[in-house]
Amino acid sequence: MSNIRAAIVGYGNLGKSVEKIIAMQPDMELMGIFSRRAELDTDSPVFPIDKIADYADQLDVLFLCLGSATDIPQLAPQYAKTANTVDTYDNHRDIPRHRQVMDEAAKAAGNVALVATGWDPGMFSLNRTLAEAILPNAKQHSFWGPGLSQGHSDAVRRVAGVKKGVQYTLPSQAALDLARQGKAGDMNNKQAHIRQCWIVADQVDHQRIEHDIRTMPDYFVGYETEVHFIDEATFDREHSGMPHGGHVVTTGDTGGFSHSIEYILKLDRNPDFTAAVQVAYGRAAHRLQTAGQTGAFTVLEVAPYLISPTPLDELIARDV
Amino acid sequence: MSNIRAAIVGYGNLGKSVEKIIAMQPDMELMGIFSRRAELDTDSPVFPIDKIADYADQLDVLFLCLGSATDIPQLAPQYAKTANTVDTYDNHRDIPRHRQVMDEAAKAAGNVALVATGWDPGMFSLNRTLAEAILPNAKQHSFWGPGLSQGHSDAVRRVAGVKKGVQYTLPSQAALDLARQGKAGDMNNKQAHIRQCWIVADQVDHQRIEHDIRTMPDYFVGYETEVHFIDEATFDREHSGMPHGGHVVTTGDTGGFSHSIEYILKLDRNPDFTAAVQVAYGRAAHRLQTAGQTGAFTVLEVAPYLISPTPLDELIARDV
Repeated sequence: MSNIRAAIVGYGNLGKSVEKIIAMQPDMELMGIFSRRAELDTDSPVFPIDKIADYADQLDVLFLCLGSATDIPQLAPQYAKTANTVDTYDNHRDIPRHRQVMDEAAKAAGNVALVATGWDPGMFSLNRTLAEAILPNAKQHSFWGPGLSQGHSDAVRRVAGVKKGVQYTLPSQAALDLARQGKAGDMNNKQAHIRQCWIVADQVDHQRIEHDIRTMPDYFVGYETEVHFIDEATFDREHSGMPHGGHVVTTGDTGGFSHSIEYILKLDRNPDFTAAVQVAYGRAAHRLQTAGQTGAFTVLEVAPYLISPTPLDELIARDV
Repeated sequence: MSNIRAAIVGYGNLGKSVEKIIAMQPDMELMGIFSRRAELDTDSPVFPIDKIADYADQLDVLFLCLGSATDIPQLAPQYAKTANTVDTYDNHRDIPRHRQVMDEAAKAAGNVALVATGWDPGMFSLNRTLAEAILPNAKQHSFWGPGLSQGHSDAVRRVAGVKKGVQYTLPSQAALDLARQGKAGDMNNKQAHIRQCWIVADQVDHQRIEHDIRTMPDYFVGYETEVHFIDEATFDREHSGMPHGGHVVTTGDTGGFSHSIEYILKLDRNPDFTAAVQVAYGRAAHRLQTAGQTGAFTVLEVAPYLISPTPLDELIARDV
């Protein structure tokens, strides 16, 4: 069997991770990266994005590594007319509309568009649907973190006297325990999470900085907030990564008997994991099209074995 | 939409749980229970198993609640010729053969046979395949328990002086921690699990009973074993259930960055949870056949949304 021929659109954090993850696949090869820029800091072939249609017959799947804010809504449908696509569009409320638009574009061209992969949306979505379908009287809560929050880190760094700063959002242990017991009720995200800041600043400013952070409206007011001051060497060593993760906790009841399903992710580098999910679903996109399917699919609509490089017979003998 | 018409074959612990779980579904109704026995302790209609073919046109799905040791291999193929079936066959090594036989029987009759559902095989299988497909350089370990072990409980109760006794198998915390760090290597199941006994016996016998248990070949020798003596009231209150559960732990590495996926089940009543998975996949069996599919499917081959009673559009808006 020949390798799946993949290409990437966009070369930010996600695109770089996809490039790395493709190189780790046993059945996939990178044909190149399409970009608006003529030169990228990579050894992979780089092509101008406006010529992508010329390369359609050299491509089995195109990984869209573009921002969810404007690029995906504006650009993804035209790429779905060129090749099978996989995106990580994460504007949850807009996903039904996006799926519809991608479905029309992909169907018109005989392609498959896998939308909203990654981990949330993506693997968390899959686990929410599976756990809720299985457990009678299901109660379900998703928790995110510990994860770097870009917007909140920027806000912390704008506080006078902050030399370096990051903000992580993480599940409240008390909230997680309540969810595991099926007692979290209608707990909202604000109650379920805490905000943890790690700051480098002169000692004389600590008290005022902590006050400025805690009283920042929208960002921190109403949240359980921790502010930790550390030295610069510790900061550089421990807080330069992009960790993330989370929990999907589902409890159910079968007439007096409790059951719980918990799915936990711990990710050292958020874009690498998102890319790993995206790449695996690229395999599925190619296989679905090869099997005669067209249109848009979410992770809920893809038979799980289709994302594995291992043949189905081997999976059944090994994993089932 | 009319309800999915379900029936049960076999009325042991699993069949009773399936009966209860079907009553909790919004889109399913129980047509009856097929049994070798003329009378069962139930309010549901009971029919003789040898007349099941006469009821084929009243059935959308048949839940096979039969033993894996001999009943499923001998009897399941003939039921697959009668109706869509869902089994919980759990002889892992024999599942490829079983799937093949069920595939032929179901295809010949235009039916769908969902094989090896439940939690292991079943949800654990699904998570093993998904996590291994996603994480580069994946290392994976499954842990079972805390769970009641029937065979070991019987062995403990045969020790002279034991009035009441149960044995649970549970993951070793040290082994679990190693797996979460990706450092468990080729650790085998014996190293990964401990055996915990709860015993009611006269004080004078405790020391000898503990020795007899720890030195029992095959059952306990070579395992980390705990023996706890408790009073009869505590035993009756705390050790009369059928708890089970476990973990699938997968770690991966993306060039110096670690990632882990962990799937955890905690089940108060093992047959209820197995039944809940089986019933959900019954929905998928009916839908697959309605969509024109025939033959045998494992959980790896079923698109996840097919097991949910919630329509796909709602799932995409709510869970993705």
